[in-house]
Amino acid sequence: MALDPNARIEITAFRWVPDFAQGVVRDLRARWALEEAGLDYRVRLLDQQRPPEYLLEQPFDQVPILRDGDLQIFESGAIVQYVGEKSEALLPKDPEGRFRAIQWTYAALNSVEPAILNLLLIDIFYKGEEWATLRRPGAEDFVKLKLKRLSDWLGDKQWLEGDRFTIGDLVMVTVLRFLRHTDLVTNVPNLAAFLKRGEARGAFQRALQDQVAVYAANQPQPEGEAA
Amino acid sequence: MALDPNARIEITAFRWVPDFAQGVVRDLRARWALEEAGLDYRVRLLDQQRPPEYLLEQPFDQVPILRDGDLQIFESGAIVQYVGEKSEALLPKDPEGRFRAIQWTYAALNSVEPAILNLLLIDIFYKGEEWATLRRPGAEDFVKLKLKRLSDWLGDKQWLEGDRFTIGDLVMVTVLRFLRHTDLVTNVPNLAAFLKRGEARGAFQRALQDQVAVYAANQPQPEGEAA
Repeated sequence: MALDPNARIEITAFRWVPDFAQGVVRDLRARWALEEAGLDYRVRLLDQQRPPEYLLEQPFDQVPILRDGDLQIFESGAIVQYVGEKSEALLPKDPEGRFRAIQWTYAALNSVEPAILNLLLIDIFYKGEEWATLRRPGAEDFVKLKLKRLSDWLGDKQWLEGDRFTIGDLVMVTVLRFLRHTDLVTNVPNLAAFLKRGEARGAFQRALQDQVAVYAANQPQPEGEAA
Repeated sequence: MALDPNARIEITAFRWVPDFAQGVVRDLRARWALEEAGLDYRVRLLDQQRPPEYLLEQPFDQVPILRDGDLQIFESGAIVQYVGEKSEALLPKDPEGRFRAIQWTYAALNSVEPAILNLLLIDIFYKGEEWATLRRPGAEDFVKLKLKRLSDWLGDKQWLEGDRFTIGDLVMVTVLRFLRHTDLVTNVPNLAAFLKRGEARGAFQRALQDQVAVYAANQPQPEGEAA
């Protein structure tokens, strides 16, 4: 168990989020990396309505932040890389292996995630709006192209750079999870298997369970019962 | 002059792109970082229609790639960080300064760029399509919110983390440049000044001139003249 209220490392996370976001909020990346690295951490919980001072720590009002003693950083990509540098289980030490992993972290967040999040927003937040209905086919085609590129690269490799799991795989798996409301990944066998391999890791399972356990413990009461 | 056909470091770039893309294609980031670091580099030019084999080097068919001896990586964020690690002019060596800079590189590419590129695509590629017309006001509001968050953070600081320019500033400046067809940055005085400070750097100027000089030299002939 890596959760420890007295741990030196602290991350921020939400106390509760709606169903569609449970299991994909980005503190999952930090939790997963910390579990892979075998590092203890504690969690600072935030309400959906963050206090205005949170912007002084996180200019874009997002989770997670990571604090490690005096060092404090935001952006899940940077946090995963920071944790990766503490553990060869996540990030090779040789320059080529190291930067091939880092390049995949950036690729997941800049070359793949924007297309996928765009589709998720269309399907969840903007569902029923006229522009969203008109745009959906093109947005889905763009996701399919990104998945094809990724699938062609992956081929029959286990992970993006071969046999060794890195921070690049970790972030890519969490990006593909944003499509769980569709069959777009399921329809691409090697990507579906890649996703399954990532999710089957013990560190992922512990991270996911710890994230959703907080939501379960802080489930808002239906108004009727509260009255 | 950092361009040298015999340099050890090679990047890929396009031989020519249409006007709207000139000065913002992502090899600019690599060129700028290399100029700041004082490193010589050569350029491998690609046609807009890349050969299919390029996908074996760059799965998403983008530029730039960086090659340094046997090491080869893609994703401009990773490349800028790689160059940054070779030069304290771009990336502090102390862990906190280093990761505060890296976090801003990720923030530029994942928390700011997607909103801005979405607006650029609406204005340039999808202009006139019904969904684009309907979506534009919301897409612009989202960009304005991102710029406000960034402006509030920046305050009267010179760079994102204070007095020292880093890879985070370099990438953020190139992201803000994607809005040059609008007055969205111009309307936010401290961001406009931040952008201007970045663009005024000698290294940026050399990078930009070298990028557009290639396009000028490879301008396609109008069909009438070619006939």
